[in-house]
Amino acid sequence: MTITRNWLAHAEGSVLVEFGGTRVLCAATVESGVPRWRKGSGLGWVTAEYAMLPRATNTRNDRESVRGKIGGRTHEISRLIGRSLRACVDYKALGENSVLLDCDVLQADGGTRTAAITGAYVALADAIAWMRQRRMCPGDPLVNSVAAVSVGVVGTEPMLDLDYSEDVKAETDMNVVMTGRGDYVEVQGTAEGTPFDRTALNGLLDLAATGCAELTRLQMEALS
Amino acid sequence: MTITRNWLAHAEGSVLVEFGGTRVLCAATVESGVPRWRKGSGLGWVTAEYAMLPRATNTRNDRESVRGKIGGRTHEISRLIGRSLRACVDYKALGENSVLLDCDVLQADGGTRTAAITGAYVALADAIAWMRQRRMCPGDPLVNSVAAVSVGVVGTEPMLDLDYSEDVKAETDMNVVMTGRGDYVEVQGTAEGTPFDRTALNGLLDLAATGCAELTRLQMEALS
Amino acid sequence: MTITRNWLAHAEGSVLVEFGGTRVLCAATVESGVPRWRKGSGLGWVTAEYAMLPRATNTRNDRESVRGKIGGRTHEISRLIGRSLRACVDYKALGENSVLLDCDVLQADGGTRTAAITGAYVALADAIAWMRQRRMCPGDPLVNSVAAVSVGVVGTEPMLDLDYSEDVKAETDMNVVMTGRGDYVEVQGTAEGTPFDRTALNGLLDLAATGCAELTRLQMEALS
Amino acid sequence: MTITRNWLAHAEGSVLVEFGGTRVLCAATVESGVPRWRKGSGLGWVTAEYAMLPRATNTRNDRESVRGKIGGRTHEISRLIGRSLRACVDYKALGENSVLLDCDVLQADGGTRTAAITGAYVALADAIAWMRQRRMCPGDPLVNSVAAVSVGVVGTEPMLDLDYSEDVKAETDMNVVMTGRGDYVEVQGTAEGTPFDRTALNGLLDLAATGCAELTRLQMEALS
Amino acid sequence: MTITRNWLAHAEGSVLVEFGGTRVLCAATVESGVPRWRKGSGLGWVTAEYAMLPRATNTRNDRESVRGKIGGRTHEISRLIGRSLRACVDYKALGENSVLLDCDVLQADGGTRTAAITGAYVALADAIAWMRQRRMCPGDPLVNSVAAVSVGVVGTEPMLDLDYSEDVKAETDMNVVMTGRGDYVEVQGTAEGTPFDRTALNGLLDLAATGCAELTRLQMEALS
Amino acid sequence: MTITRNWLAHAEGSVLVEFGGTRVLCAATVESGVPRWRKGSGLGWVTAEYAMLPRATNTRNDRESVRGKIGGRTHEISRLIGRSLRACVDYKALGENSVLLDCDVLQADGGTRTAAITGAYVALADAIAWMRQRRMCPGDPLVNSVAAVSVGVVGTEPMLDLDYSEDVKAETDMNVVMTGRGDYVEVQGTAEGTPFDRTALNGLLDLAATGCAELTRLQMEALS
Repeated sequence: MTITRNWLAHAEGSVLVEFGGTRVLCAATVESGVPRWRKGSGLGWVTAEYAMLPRATNTRNDRESVRGKIGGRTHEISRLIGRSLRACVDYKALGENSVLLDCDVLQADGGTRTAAITGAYVALADAIAWMRQRRMCPGDPLVNSVAAVSVGVVGTEPMLDLDYSEDVKAETDMNVVMTGRGDYVEVQGTAEGTPFDRTALNGLLDLAATGCAELTRLQMEALS
Repeated sequence: MTITRNWLAHAEGSVLVEFGGTRVLCAATVESGVPRWRKGSGLGWVTAEYAMLPRATNTRNDRESVRGKIGGRTHEISRLIGRSLRACVDYKALGENSVLLDCDVLQADGGTRTAAITGAYVALADAIAWMRQRRMCPGDPLVNSVAAVSVGVVGTEPMLDLDYSEDVKAETDMNVVMTGRGDYVEVQGTAEGTPFDRTALNGLLDLAATGCAELTRLQMEALS
Repeated sequence: MTITRNWLAHAEGSVLVEFGGTRVLCAATVESGVPRWRKGSGLGWVTAEYAMLPRATNTRNDRESVRGKIGGRTHEISRLIGRSLRACVDYKALGENSVLLDCDVLQADGGTRTAAITGAYVALADAIAWMRQRRMCPGDPLVNSVAAVSVGVVGTEPMLDLDYSEDVKAETDMNVVMTGRGDYVEVQGTAEGTPFDRTALNGLLDLAATGCAELTRLQMEALS
Repeated sequence: MTITRNWLAHAEGSVLVEFGGTRVLCAATVESGVPRWRKGSGLGWVTAEYAMLPRATNTRNDRESVRGKIGGRTHEISRLIGRSLRACVDYKALGENSVLLDCDVLQADGGTRTAAITGAYVALADAIAWMRQRRMCPGDPLVNSVAAVSVGVVGTEPMLDLDYSEDVKAETDMNVVMTGRGDYVEVQGTAEGTPFDRTALNGLLDLAATGCAELTRLQMEALS
Repeated sequence: MTITRNWLAHAEGSVLVEFGGTRVLCAATVESGVPRWRKGSGLGWVTAEYAMLPRATNTRNDRESVRGKIGGRTHEISRLIGRSLRACVDYKALGENSVLLDCDVLQADGGTRTAAITGAYVALADAIAWMRQRRMCPGDPLVNSVAAVSVGVVGTEPMLDLDYSEDVKAETDMNVVMTGRGDYVEVQGTAEGTPFDRTALNGLLDLAATGCAELTRLQMEALS
Repeated sequence: MTITRNWLAHAEGSVLVEFGGTRVLCAATVESGVPRWRKGSGLGWVTAEYAMLPRATNTRNDRESVRGKIGGRTHEISRLIGRSLRACVDYKALGENSVLLDCDVLQADGGTRTAAITGAYVALADAIAWMRQRRMCPGDPLVNSVAAVSVGVVGTEPMLDLDYSEDVKAETDMNVVMTGRGDYVEVQGTAEGTPFDRTALNGLLDLAATGCAELTRLQMEALS
């Protein structure tokens, strides 16, 4: 995994994550103010949007803007990324400011959602540093880091970071989002084929912990 | 939990699930034929749609038909229900037929998605029995049962089947979908507040296994 | 016709109307305030939305939320219900408050729009009682009652309250909304086949008056 | 009321109806073939669409194309016009052909829907004549004529053909569509204010009969 | 070209432009106030919307309101008309008022966008006169006039004002918008077939200048 | 200007164009078959879609997929790119195949549409080479090259290739698309402020010719 910071000139934080054949561009936008339902609370907000360029994949996908609506998968992943990043943030220390993370997949080869979370954390950290330089926040809002991996069972073998062809064949597919301290933010496992038992689940969780720890190390390296 | 079968006159299978203050109406529709991308494969298909009546909740929600688009939460839950029920079905034995499960929340008091999955399984079983009477299927497509519970940590206490007020306070919220044989179809855990550790995760998984086993018993009772 | 009050826990008024094979759930939501165009007038507002669950009918209908737009028939019936109920209400006595009636057809077997109006009146009465207990209204806004029937000519026979199979065969179809005092709020007659003459129209109006009077009696009984 | 035929160069039938300050352009389009659900039946189809230019009225209305959806009122009137014109047509004699009537209000001063029906009949008659010249129809599809008036009670006075300012003040508003032989196709009466009794209803129906007979005479004159 | 002023009763300025078989109705609506992004600037705004009735053309086009979205061509032409008319206006002298030009094509036979611009100028002039009578503007906002022609190369021949059948055959199609003083507001030339050279471009520009000057004369005549 | 070919792994042709602060990713997708209206003609088709990532600009723009509709500017530019590239192609030699060019602006600093056209030509050339290797085309469809520049008047000075801050200040803005042989495919000039005269127009056209010739040279270099 390669993490290139400041890939964009305008964004308050931006990262190009490259991970096998997968390339995701993560841009953090700082806005002073929060959504209406949160006004006057003294608390900040973090949210995310995920999308894929039409030719990121092997066959072209129609644009969601052309179809006029956002698909279920896009919605689901956007919400997952937002939830994951909110786990890093102390809303009080952020003050009534918002950070919006745009994760756009330029090229896809498996694991786009976990690459997006891992990259978006770095963009978020840069955006918060930008805010702190400008003294926009009452405290230090960045209280944690998050990284994410996908793990799966191909055949009977638990595997980390499946590429697209492995992903298609996986019996079970699990996305795990963990903090830098090794706690869980999100665990999402789905049996695509045969349902899995507790032993298999434990094996996947062990593998995920190793993977997330390694990604956390790469994030810290990139940020230092 | 109360399961009332044949609540609707027209549907091939239908169930009203009542579970605390939650009431979900599950209707199974049988259609001969499958979506275009699956035609000629000899395989069947199962899908689901979830929705909530505007006044199911304490304050009214605008209709998604009036807003002109389906929200992310609705999409996400519809997809979860569909995936869960597909784990019960042998597509080959179903032949090129489809079953569509409509899960409409008439009243909500926590746990609507897990109630929907648990009830939809019974409606699906009835719809498949209906098909088999008419000899529509080449074999017996119902190879498994599924039930679902939500578990959470309120304070530091792991709890089964949170009502709405507990749900709001929960630090961690986990939906677990298990087969009648005790294997996992889906595990979705989210830290709403503080990230959780492996011990807490294990405690929640244990609780979920007990809950799902009890629901499986109720499903079998209702179907016998 | 059976009228079950308080079918929902959260709504300020709610009624399940059962009428032959037709079941409509009517929920009244009270909101303080009125739409923008009416602000500052001192007058209240009453409106309605009608919808049908996808499997209310013999064959499944796609959800309007999935299609992304509301059909002409839904619009037309929602407007009819709203107009009918506004005939019961003194806007000044209501003050700047709104009542929204949601009429959701759970199962359909003819006459869903007239069942909806008849049930929505009871839900509205309960919602207004709820407001009066809380002293939200400057006066008593409920100045009238409304009930509705559908009448039709099957063959040459005028008939009251057609079920679905009669409805399909009807030459003429008429919806009549009347107050408890026997005045007309709405008369909508359509020749589906042969145009009808004044004598036939008079016969249908006589039949409708009898039907509405009987429904008014049932409403009063339910509310007492 | 002035009826100008052949106002458009391209349409198979077209009429500009002028009626007080109201101007409606009615265009009939002939298409060989019928909607999918009617294919193979040997029967034709007639349908209508109603719309208003943004500046037809005193204050400008946003375009429905810009808002991205068709309002309830537009839907309702389009359906009324379609039903009314279908009463004139023998589907078997039309064969598997369709006529689509576009009624666009260029300027509005009350009674736009009834002016549209009255004008659309003439455009339909011209379109059917066009088809018969080309021997597209197996028989003569035009078995009836229709005309429509709006009547209302202003104060306590029943009045024919209200202009916009009278319409706003009307207590009761009724649209009546009648055939050239004096039978009813549609009766739609609504109490905007005080509900009306049977005597008032009879008075309005008498007035409507006189008005429709006069319009039928003008239609025949225009077509001769 | 015929220009009929005051074709509509309600609009602050209105013109029916007839030009060969093309008929465009241009209506100017005056609104006090400006869009949100311009508030407090002291400057006015002018904008335009273009649309075509479904049966303006030889074969019927579906309504954009029914399709639920505005096509690219409609957007493009609306923007062109708005830009062209803004060239006539001194925003400061207009004050914080808006003029919206609706250009609806009733019948089309080539050159609808240039006819719309030419007519909309006259409607704008009338609307500004209306405002000045009511002393709504701090100064005289009308500082220029605009007219537009389409020119094209049919075969090798440069031609002015193509009708529809010539337009289809044209190798090159150019729309030119010029002020009454002979300066350019917009030049849009497209090679539909073979790309064109500088000589051809110059020929077309010469022809356009002659055409616009003649239209300016007709506009002044209509306004005097 | 830097042109990087094969930036994407999956597309049949792909180019990253960098031009000052502007970065556009152009991807060409080859599809066998043509749109429905062109089937059976023996002719191919070329089309384009333009979009901008939300954080390509200094302040974030909402996604068009989230707003649910494509804006006028996007439509206009997509159509311009499509028209420009079609000028390079012999449809007969392409056979019934389609090429779709996706131009996504990753970062914007003025001139995005002209950068998109210039880059898309190179992606198109690669896609056609890909097709010819697979013998999909009956002949050589690439009969021309196109390049595009924007020119403008800042103050009184004609300038080539404005960056964003110059663009905002420009009195006149002109996009010129020319073939490699120096002919015009598209000329689009707009007076944002003061209308311009023939002399200014000629000056801009001269500047554009020089700019396009230089870009053609860079395209050929990149492709060799």
